[in-house]
Amino acid sequence: MNEAVQYLHAVYPLSDEVLSHLDSILKSRSLVKGEFLLKPGEVCENIYFIKKGLLRCYYLRGETEVSAWFMKEADVIVSVDSYYEQVPSYEYIQALEDCDLYYITFYEEDYIFQTYLEYNVIGRLLTRKYLQVWNRQLRNIRMLSAAERYQELLNKEPELLLRVPLKYLASYLDMLPETLSRMRNRISN
Amino acid sequence: MNEAVQYLHAVYPLSDEVLSHLDSILKSRSLVKGEFLLKPGEVCENIYFIKKGLLRCYYLRGETEVSAWFMKEADVIVSVDSYYEQVPSYEYIQALEDCDLYYITFYEEDYIFQTYLEYNVIGRLLTRKYLQVWNRQLRNIRMLSAAERYQELLNKEPELLLRVPLKYLASYLDMLPETLSRMRNRISN
Repeated sequence: MNEAVQYLHAVYPLSDEVLSHLDSILKSRSLVKGEFLLKPGEVCENIYFIKKGLLRCYYLRGETEVSAWFMKEADVIVSVDSYYEQVPSYEYIQALEDCDLYYITFYEEDYIFQTYLEYNVIGRLLTRKYLQVWNRQLRNIRMLSAAERYQELLNKEPELLLRVPLKYLASYLDMLPETLSRMRNRISN
Repeated sequence: MNEAVQYLHAVYPLSDEVLSHLDSILKSRSLVKGEFLLKPGEVCENIYFIKKGLLRCYYLRGETEVSAWFMKEADVIVSVDSYYEQVPSYEYIQALEDCDLYYITFYEEDYIFQTYLEYNVIGRLLTRKYLQVWNRQLRNIRMLSAAERYQELLNKEPELLLRVPLKYLASYLDMLPETLSRMRNRISN
């Protein structure tokens, strides 16, 4: 069993039939640091499992890049609206490190949902996981001060501070790079 | 079939067995305008279907009420983290109009997911629907100007402008009540 199938099987134990079907259709793709997985105007045709590496999703506000999320090992990623509706994306997804990914297409996933009811348990639980992530992001932006958002990142995802360039993290936290830099220096001193 | 079961059956056709099980456990509750469905510190024990009415979810930022969402007829609502984790909520859910709701408990829903695999299709599709709503809210706050966020609301959910007091809408759109009031007047003139 490869890493993606192992991960799914741990979310919900799947029958041998589904496991071998998944094994037969999973494709792999590697990206070098800086390479794009998706650009605006393209349809997000695949759902990806991250075996190794780190990716950033962002969009442009005028000339400014706004980071929507960072995902790493064992995350499952899509450009939400583009994937579910199979319409052109307004987002970029870019590798911040060399990455190894597994993926299946939207239509392959849809076939699995329709053919193997049990796979819907996994679909439900993974969607719920990311609804909770999105919910926490919305709450943090609306409810917390810049200093509290930084503290929250430090508590929940300290790894990002080591792996993501500061200029990308700042817009994710809805603050200016200078503010984030000041906070980091204050806390590390 | 009552309205909630009809709605679920339209999302994905369910077997007679699930339909009659749902019919036997669904409970109803009515709220008068201003009444609370949930307060901070309480666990969101139920998942609700709105048959009639409009509800607001909000939390406090210092002394300020920040509106997280408004849901109306045919929406399915919970306080996301509190319901999924069965932990105390930090949110209020309040009726903005007289409401008629149907509901089942977290444990009743969990039993259905475990007993009837087909029900996971509905769980997946409804979770996905709200992930897209949350995704759009995040994008709007991060990417659009105040004027564009107002225009988006006008295009996508014009009904809210008629049914929700302006002071509640302003924090939902991440703007001051005076800004929203000015925009509304400018556009309606």
